[in-house]
Amino acid sequence: MPTAAPALEALHRHLHTTRLLGSISSALYYDQNTVMPAAGAAWRGEQLALLATQLHERQSSEAYAELVAAAEAELDPSAPPERRRNLELLRLELNRQRCLDPALVSALARAQSRGNAIWQEARAASDFAAFAPALRELIRLRREQAAQLAAAEPVERSPWEVLAQPFEPDISKARLAELFAPLEAELPPLLERVADASAGGGAAADLPEGLQEQLAAELLESWGYDGRRCQRSRSAHPFSCTVGPDDFRITTRVVSGQPLSAFLATAHEWGHSLYEQGLPRGDDHWFPWPLGEATSMGVHESQSLFWECRVARSRAFAERWHPRFCRGLGADPWDGAFAFWRTFNPLRPGLIRVEADELSYTLHIVLRFELELALLEQEMPVEELPGRWKRRMQELLGLEPPSDAVGCLQDIHWAEGLFGYFPSYALGHLISAQIAEALEREIGSIEGLVREGQEAALQAWLGANVWPLGRSVNGEELVERVTGQPLSARPFLAYLRSKLEGLSGMAA
Amino acid sequence: MPTAAPALEALHRHLHTTRLLGSISSALYYDQNTVMPAAGAAWRGEQLALLATQLHERQSSEAYAELVAAAEAELDPSAPPERRRNLELLRLELNRQRCLDPALVSALARAQSRGNAIWQEARAASDFAAFAPALRELIRLRREQAAQLAAAEPVERSPWEVLAQPFEPDISKARLAELFAPLEAELPPLLERVADASAGGGAAADLPEGLQEQLAAELLESWGYDGRRCQRSRSAHPFSCTVGPDDFRITTRVVSGQPLSAFLATAHEWGHSLYEQGLPRGDDHWFPWPLGEATSMGVHESQSLFWECRVARSRAFAERWHPRFCRGLGADPWDGAFAFWRTFNPLRPGLIRVEADELSYTLHIVLRFELELALLEQEMPVEELPGRWKRRMQELLGLEPPSDAVGCLQDIHWAEGLFGYFPSYALGHLISAQIAEALEREIGSIEGLVREGQEAALQAWLGANVWPLGRSVNGEELVERVTGQPLSARPFLAYLRSKLEGLSGMAA
Repeated sequence: MPTAAPALEALHRHLHTTRLLGSISSALYYDQNTVMPAAGAAWRGEQLALLATQLHERQSSEAYAELVAAAEAELDPSAPPERRRNLELLRLELNRQRCLDPALVSALARAQSRGNAIWQEARAASDFAAFAPALRELIRLRREQAAQLAAAEPVERSPWEVLAQPFEPDISKARLAELFAPLEAELPPLLERVADASAGGGAAADLPEGLQEQLAAELLESWGYDGRRCQRSRSAHPFSCTVGPDDFRITTRVVSGQPLSAFLATAHEWGHSLYEQGLPRGDDHWFPWPLGEATSMGVHESQSLFWECRVARSRAFAERWHPRFCRGLGADPWDGAFAFWRTFNPLRPGLIRVEADELSYTLHIVLRFELELALLEQEMPVEELPGRWKRRMQELLGLEPPSDAVGCLQDIHWAEGLFGYFPSYALGHLISAQIAEALEREIGSIEGLVREGQEAALQAWLGANVWPLGRSVNGEELVERVTGQPLSARPFLAYLRSKLEGLSGMAA
Repeated sequence: MPTAAPALEALHRHLHTTRLLGSISSALYYDQNTVMPAAGAAWRGEQLALLATQLHERQSSEAYAELVAAAEAELDPSAPPERRRNLELLRLELNRQRCLDPALVSALARAQSRGNAIWQEARAASDFAAFAPALRELIRLRREQAAQLAAAEPVERSPWEVLAQPFEPDISKARLAELFAPLEAELPPLLERVADASAGGGAAADLPEGLQEQLAAELLESWGYDGRRCQRSRSAHPFSCTVGPDDFRITTRVVSGQPLSAFLATAHEWGHSLYEQGLPRGDDHWFPWPLGEATSMGVHESQSLFWECRVARSRAFAERWHPRFCRGLGADPWDGAFAFWRTFNPLRPGLIRVEADELSYTLHIVLRFELELALLEQEMPVEELPGRWKRRMQELLGLEPPSDAVGCLQDIHWAEGLFGYFPSYALGHLISAQIAEALEREIGSIEGLVREGQEAALQAWLGANVWPLGRSVNGEELVERVTGQPLSARPFLAYLRSKLEGLSGMAA
């Protein structure tokens, strides 16, 4: 920090402490999900609530507002654009924090916690009616929140759009509808073709836990895992988390009956972590400046999906790793590398989003996006949700859920009033595919590079072209900057068609 | 909390938050020593420093002082004695915090961190002269601290005594000299007899890491380990730590060439944890009241030593576990249960405190206690430390360190200016032995109970007689309450003689 900018320095110190507190929460979250004994949960909840209160105060206090205002006033026309961008991002977040009524914030926190608890029981009993009142209340509070937040938005935004901003800055309903329309038009017929050709993964042999652990470790080793800066643990649900500027954690789990789950989850979470590790540093960057943060959940997901789907599920990768899997097992239960590849790419539409394959996954999102709009902006009564869900599942995926437990009660998001998040998952697939096309134009086909074990070249390209952008651009701007084209579903659909051809053509 | 005591309630809320912050530090410490990647250390240091600053503020602020004063004023003569005791303990700690000059506190923090760094290098090079100036400065600052703290002491105390209070409340030099005199008189001749009889453990077979892990898990299982409230991990140095009122952690390590190290460390740390788990709860107790805390480091150590030395190193225990060890190994490299027991009890005086056996351990402490007094109160120049160390090692243990690295530079304590702590280790041995005598009078011999696998009876007795006392009494009062006698070295010396007889008599 230059000493000629005392207000900026003071702001820097404030943000540094805020980051320290935020990262303490991350460390506790990691502990909670990896080693904390179950009975520790209540006290851990209090610890996290205390930190959340401290964080909220630091991010919305009058003292902080004065620090931001002073740094803005100090900014002269010759200031580097990064500095300007940082202050813009801080100002936007500050304005959002400050236009929320504290009473609403705590009412929401209570409703979320209650919603989660009621949902757990309602899902177990597949009893949507039991959950409906909690959902109605959450929708009411979120609409109220969106109304309060609208005042801070730099442009006119609908309630759903306001709520989606923290996950996908500058996203609009219209743009999403445009991006998703080709998916809705082209994926269902593709799914039918797959069903006809019965292309899908064969049954996979189960792998001993020790072997799954060892293969995951070898995968990370070959992808540049550095034990001095990274840690991998076990948890009930895989996640990636950054605990400090040089402290990156990922977790995986071994799922009985799903022999590739831990291996693919490792690839996925490592993709998230690589992005975090590659975010820009230096004076105006993370930690603690916003410019060095991930720019959107869609971009974050594109990085994890790149390593999971484009690399680890590729044919070349399966061919390279097939001997290792067989060596570890002392047998080849797949009967050859091609069948092994197919087990990495099961293509079977199913009812559950988190188990969906690449072909049907985005349709699960299209469904949820539609229903969120209906609930939040089109006055659809919550009672109509199960019926609408079933009808649209039939139309999009050709399936009808036998119960709400595997239908509209399957996800935790709405149970906590989380609206506006789902589309980022689909954007991740689209962004990954479009970035992959640009990468292939510049350094050659991913299949070819993976065949030669050149994953380091993929990493180097992403590390030069994608990760350093941080929050200097939003998700769509990032895609345009990296690929020279506006984001579209075309590369994703082209990739799927080509993959399908490979999988089913050879299998015929 | 009764609603008739609003000041007490306000104080309770304050202390509750203080405990939350303190336990967040514990969770970070656990993470740091079990899974944190090395490069995370700098950021973790900042996180811990931030929490330490917040904690210090909460424990010394004017606002807190007012809360304590208000609760004192509210206390009526009919208040339960526990409440009165809590306020006394809080008042004493508050007065101590508040009579320290903040400039001294930060000077000490810097000197400790510098001292530790210089010591690391000086020890590696066995270069005492390089460490001497840092030690001299630490002594100067600690004497200054003792002078400031003296004002808060309820009775007249010497500088060393003032510094020892946080570890061993109410301890005095005179009392320690009295307790240690029999050790200094009787242990050296015992050590000579052992050397003559060459009683000592035979060489132990090394045990595979997996087997050591399994045996440690079985040990905990048989001693009531509850995975819902406890967690065991690996760390470089074994420790025990309480993260929340229902969240207890211990760590162990596997040391190559020391096949029983992990097993005995597990017993030791579990002893610490059992004490923490058994501390009293309820309105006036932990969390967050001081009355429910451990009363002294000596008592804490007595509980870990009880399970390590009185139980796990007992002959009956060795006889019970010998078959399991042999089964795990598929062989009996010890050639019988008696030799197996002897490997649990090597009796060889050595230069290093942390590797010392039960017979010589307390003499290492006698030496350090003497030298601390010389440095802090008798104007001994730091330059004379290595010479005095060598001479007294010769007199007490019959050994001369070939270098300062394995002499006066071996411990980290003085490198961080930690004076007054060492005696608690020796008190732990004395207290454990005296409590064991009382236990045997009431429920029968430990050997007999262990032979029948009745460790639960030992736990129940400690859980009824020792752990619930919390801080209602100090260490010596606890011993007198539990055993009906003032603390003395007699039970410890009697125990050693009897053990020695068993070990060497049979071996003859």
